[in-house]
Amino acid sequence: MMERSVIGIDLGATRIKAGLVRGERIVGTVVVNLNPADRGQDGIVRRLAAVVEELCAKFLEPDEKPAGIGIGSPGAIRHATGVIVRAPNFAEWSDFELGRMLSEATGFVTRLDNDANVITLGEAVYGAGRGMRDFLCLTLGSGLGGGLFLDGAIYRGADGMAGELGHIGVEPEGFPCNCGSRGCIEQYVAAVGLRNYVARDRLFGDDTREALADPDLPRRLYQMCLDGHPVAVKYFHDVGYYLAMGIGTFLNLLNVEAVILGGGLARSFDAFGPTMREELHRRAYPVLVERTSIVLCELWEDAGILGAAALLNPKP
Amino acid sequence: MMERSVIGIDLGATRIKAGLVRGERIVGTVVVNLNPADRGQDGIVRRLAAVVEELCAKFLEPDEKPAGIGIGSPGAIRHATGVIVRAPNFAEWSDFELGRMLSEATGFVTRLDNDANVITLGEAVYGAGRGMRDFLCLTLGSGLGGGLFLDGAIYRGADGMAGELGHIGVEPEGFPCNCGSRGCIEQYVAAVGLRNYVARDRLFGDDTREALADPDLPRRLYQMCLDGHPVAVKYFHDVGYYLAMGIGTFLNLLNVEAVILGGGLARSFDAFGPTMREELHRRAYPVLVERTSIVLCELWEDAGILGAAALLNPKP
Repeated sequence: MMERSVIGIDLGATRIKAGLVRGERIVGTVVVNLNPADRGQDGIVRRLAAVVEELCAKFLEPDEKPAGIGIGSPGAIRHATGVIVRAPNFAEWSDFELGRMLSEATGFVTRLDNDANVITLGEAVYGAGRGMRDFLCLTLGSGLGGGLFLDGAIYRGADGMAGELGHIGVEPEGFPCNCGSRGCIEQYVAAVGLRNYVARDRLFGDDTREALADPDLPRRLYQMCLDGHPVAVKYFHDVGYYLAMGIGTFLNLLNVEAVILGGGLARSFDAFGPTMREELHRRAYPVLVERTSIVLCELWEDAGILGAAALLNPKP
Repeated sequence: MMERSVIGIDLGATRIKAGLVRGERIVGTVVVNLNPADRGQDGIVRRLAAVVEELCAKFLEPDEKPAGIGIGSPGAIRHATGVIVRAPNFAEWSDFELGRMLSEATGFVTRLDNDANVITLGEAVYGAGRGMRDFLCLTLGSGLGGGLFLDGAIYRGADGMAGELGHIGVEPEGFPCNCGSRGCIEQYVAAVGLRNYVARDRLFGDDTREALADPDLPRRLYQMCLDGHPVAVKYFHDVGYYLAMGIGTFLNLLNVEAVILGGGLARSFDAFGPTMREELHRRAYPVLVERTSIVLCELWEDAGILGAAALLNPKP
């Protein structure tokens, strides 16, 4: 008998990435960019319904029906009801009942969670967290996102807002953070951390402002680090140092089996990993450091689609 | 029908406090100090069995039998098997099967957990955490202890070592900590934090060393603070400041319903509470600060006995 099919959707600030998932495999994908007219509540539902229809038409077997739709979305999500309370990049999404609306538009069961939880769930079901009961995911992208997988399930907290791993304090009076606080770990690691270091030091002199606007700046710094540029080497050292401080806190607090690192900047692991590992031995209880695996994620850019599909598992 | 009785034991570094608990009430207690001969594995089991016998003889009804024994103990505990892996103050307790041994000596079911988890469980079942699904307990004693109550149960982590709330980093290169790290929050709050401030500033000049040896130093500083001594006022301000930094991290990470403060220094809440509340609004997501109750514990010194008794609840 053929394995059941599920539709997994990675809904981003600028595009929709959707895939038909059968068993552990993405059978096919559809990617569409969002134009301004698509960004309201009705517009997004229409776009998503069209993507679902396209996926089914292209990749389903004759007479096959998907078991449902899973969506990872930015913003504050009420997982139980499929409602997006609000999302920073979508002004019109206030108490947006996306789950119910897409289900009515397509006729398929629809489940919803925030993108960080979905990535974590993807690693739990299909990736580096397979078979584990307790781990956490750190996504080093433009900021530091993440999710908690505790006692065999995504831990969501009292209102579904747990897991703000980027917003733990590591410098009492450090860099101001978008969240309103200051000294959050996110401001010292990931791309935003590198940008803070460059801005503080005016690393490129009069060209610093232009360099900061370059989306490719983290890769450029990484190349400088590989080339032995002492300031770039120091920046990645600092990323490792603060990451160890944060991971030390997570280990002492949560005693997880593994910390899984993903996101674009995790691909520069050779630049910050050695400092991170060395410093971590000075930070957390030795018995906890020794028993915890710090590993790279396995799914990388497939995590969004596979994790969303995993929302349809019997026990997500 | 009479409610069932359970024996709750608070096993400390220097004494045993045990109580017979019926329903939500401590019916009677027995307290014994430990002398050196009692501190080995066999000695402790003998002492505990004698205490249990005394409790039963004094406070049980004729023909009544306790439903079991719960123990809160210092050290690293394997809750599932009732084994104490090791305990800092008891050199001979290596892989000590206290649960099995006391059960054999008394004929009663025996359950075991570490003292911080037991206090947290006590507040969950009988105290300020009653009816809550997600909260954490912070015990401001000589150090900063605590426990996590997540998704309706004590969260113990992969090896039962979760909940080291005192060992999250708040100052990257701060005061050295007994755990081997530096800048742990424990070094800035609780009695150990106050002592660090006094030692750093040599607050009492040539009498500083003597003052640090005084177990009553925290109360003395509290009185100085109430009297308006500016340095003492600053110390309690700093306790509130760092506590807010730690609680901010806990809220952003775990989205709990409440933070419950206990331990001796929590009785000085009026000295550090206002700074803590004010600073917390600058630290954590506003929506999380507003929805989380920061409250004093309800059980105080009864938490050890009641929490230990609660280990015998059907779903501890």
